[in-house]
Amino acid sequence: MTTSTAIRRLNAADPDFARHLDHLLSWESVSDDAVNQRVLDIIQAVRERGDAALVEFTQRFDGVEAKSIADLILGRERLELALTRITAEQRQALEKAAERVRLYHERQKQDSWSYTEADGTVLGQKVTPLDRAGLYVPGGKASYPSSVLMNAIPAKVAGVGEVVMVVPTPRGEVNELVLAAACIAGVDRVFTIGGAQAVAALAYGTESVPQVDKVVGPGNIYVATAKRHVFGQVGIDMIAGPSEILVVCDGQTDPDWIAMDLFSQAEHDEDAQSILVSPDAAFLDRVAASIDKLLPTMDRAEIIRTSIDGRGALIQVRDMDQAMEVANRIAPEHLELSVADPQAWLPKIRHAGAIFMGRHTSEALGDYCAGPNHVLPTSGTARFSSPLGVYDFQKRSSIIFCSEQGASELGKTASVLARGESLSAHARSAEYRILADQEGN
Amino acid sequence: MTTSTAIRRLNAADPDFARHLDHLLSWESVSDDAVNQRVLDIIQAVRERGDAALVEFTQRFDGVEAKSIADLILGRERLELALTRITAEQRQALEKAAERVRLYHERQKQDSWSYTEADGTVLGQKVTPLDRAGLYVPGGKASYPSSVLMNAIPAKVAGVGEVVMVVPTPRGEVNELVLAAACIAGVDRVFTIGGAQAVAALAYGTESVPQVDKVVGPGNIYVATAKRHVFGQVGIDMIAGPSEILVVCDGQTDPDWIAMDLFSQAEHDEDAQSILVSPDAAFLDRVAASIDKLLPTMDRAEIIRTSIDGRGALIQVRDMDQAMEVANRIAPEHLELSVADPQAWLPKIRHAGAIFMGRHTSEALGDYCAGPNHVLPTSGTARFSSPLGVYDFQKRSSIIFCSEQGASELGKTASVLARGESLSAHARSAEYRILADQEGN
Repeated sequence: MTTSTAIRRLNAADPDFARHLDHLLSWESVSDDAVNQRVLDIIQAVRERGDAALVEFTQRFDGVEAKSIADLILGRERLELALTRITAEQRQALEKAAERVRLYHERQKQDSWSYTEADGTVLGQKVTPLDRAGLYVPGGKASYPSSVLMNAIPAKVAGVGEVVMVVPTPRGEVNELVLAAACIAGVDRVFTIGGAQAVAALAYGTESVPQVDKVVGPGNIYVATAKRHVFGQVGIDMIAGPSEILVVCDGQTDPDWIAMDLFSQAEHDEDAQSILVSPDAAFLDRVAASIDKLLPTMDRAEIIRTSIDGRGALIQVRDMDQAMEVANRIAPEHLELSVADPQAWLPKIRHAGAIFMGRHTSEALGDYCAGPNHVLPTSGTARFSSPLGVYDFQKRSSIIFCSEQGASELGKTASVLARGESLSAHARSAEYRILADQEGN
Repeated sequence: MTTSTAIRRLNAADPDFARHLDHLLSWESVSDDAVNQRVLDIIQAVRERGDAALVEFTQRFDGVEAKSIADLILGRERLELALTRITAEQRQALEKAAERVRLYHERQKQDSWSYTEADGTVLGQKVTPLDRAGLYVPGGKASYPSSVLMNAIPAKVAGVGEVVMVVPTPRGEVNELVLAAACIAGVDRVFTIGGAQAVAALAYGTESVPQVDKVVGPGNIYVATAKRHVFGQVGIDMIAGPSEILVVCDGQTDPDWIAMDLFSQAEHDEDAQSILVSPDAAFLDRVAASIDKLLPTMDRAEIIRTSIDGRGALIQVRDMDQAMEVANRIAPEHLELSVADPQAWLPKIRHAGAIFMGRHTSEALGDYCAGPNHVLPTSGTARFSSPLGVYDFQKRSSIIFCSEQGASELGKTASVLARGESLSAHARSAEYRILADQEGN
């Protein structure tokens, strides 16, 4: 028996709307003490016993029959083998997606810059790639080849010397599409390890796993907790919350399209969040009807239903201006502007991970192959963070070259400020550089 | 009685050098359970009781006689008053430094970009400033006006709507130079609160303190721990370790200059780290002699001695190439290339927060007024992170506009990949956008 969904309806005209919206959006990811302690123990074991600990944990947690670390290493030739084990159509699709992702990300590459002042002083920034990056790829059902492309390609475009991938293979189950994607993306080495132990190995290095400078990629609560703990020892990307979509529609898009766009987020997991905002109340009804009609036809109907009922919403607003206010309040990971003239509304959007413009630009196109990254800030963090990009695999060093004249002039200012801070070694270090014939100036 | 320092001597030719260097550099900042629990309690109290909790904590921890939150707010007019309370020389130095910092950081501003493909599809990134940033400034002795400039100016250059500063005033003691710097840097509002309670107020907002999108600025262990805990709710800058300098010298710089440059780092605090690397053993001896000679003349001699003895080192290397290897291994916060031709060695430097080139460019010049930021990655994190900059106050949103033709083509690729990941709602959402007359393609 099919029952209709109980998707929440909100109206921005309701005096309690702000509170209802806050409640709808509230999400806190908390690693409880037990998880924290297990993760800390695992990190400690990997730091102390290296490969031996990795083999033990992988046997115990992943049910893998590994005799030694050698059984947990895949070389480039194994990745190339995977390319032959997927269909020609799949290979072509992966290659096309990889090419578009590469072209887009090449536009993000940042270059060193400098300028010279009148007295010969040179100031600038030198931009360099990380030496080595680690890419975590989940095993089992959440093992997505598209994520391999989205994480590895920006690193390679940045010029990272070596990209090391870790992916658990629960009960020895290897995902050939994931390995094929790794091959196409240019991943250098793969270890079939996962969990907190894989993060620890990348952060601290073992006899076999090289220490990396940054760990990126999604994972379960153990992986996320481990990333938080190793932050500082290595860089990490964001800690992702559940995936979300906000669709803003003027009421003129096919309601089936909108329902399916909402489903495409909801099918990820029960905590995913799908919200539609429209000034057209009758359209919201039509989308609700499409949801009820289409849901029984979905492969992941139960996950979608739980997500839609628990965290979804149809929000009625006064007009499109108010829709933009709601969008900025939510700062969504994915924002679809399913409207006639999306360009007209773009200037009003201040916060969003990715903006999908127009009725034809469904989020799914961006998830796989439009070019931009699908690793995006979740849970409102688009207020202050950005999509994963080439810039996450580059870093900057300030360049300061003072001419003798420049140092002499700056020394006078630095001396005053340093003495104001009672830092007299700073002051004297600066004063040494004041040219003798200028001290009286 | 003056005793000579016991600065450590290392030689890169020693077979145990790598281990000694690792030991020298080892630093782990650990917030113990007691600190963590106190910080969590403070955050909880501020979230629950807002201004009232802030007033209580400020009375208790800072010994400030505040009756209500109104006593903890400084308006622009109070900042302007501070400008009249410092010397004309100090005001001029602050203004000169601010102007140079502003000019440098304007070069860092990033712009939105996009490109259009043959079928009309538009891809790009929209760059926007944060709405509101919070700046933590320590109270008491570590309260540095230069840090106010270095944190606030990049935010203002980025176009951040409002910059809110918090600075504790232990026993009511106000630092006029800090307020003057805030005035010059364009800080919008100041609250005289500090500690974990100030970080919590900025992250969650209270009746009076506005919620910000990112919290930047240095602080003690309570502040650092609170920043770690609110990360995700708001953005944070790096969690800074002790300050460090690595000087690479060819042996031709005045040893007094080098000794004073090492002191300028060591005077910050007992954990600061000052290291000199040179291929010239006799020069290392001369610098050691300068250290012993100059130390008794320093205002902060005891802090410097503890730092130099505990964490300093003079390292002899085979040649300048090996000096570059050591520099990359250390990935120092500050790197002085005190050599004849620093430009020749620059290409070999992969990791450093800031590079001070040539004998006249002492770190102190960059700390105050050269232009580049003095908030830099510490403890080897220059391997993967960058100086604080305008880019820390900007964020990006991906822009994807697919033409009908573009969506149709991308839909085919997305469909194959989505089905490969068993995400059929993604596939169907993409397939809706395949144009009817093209389905057979």
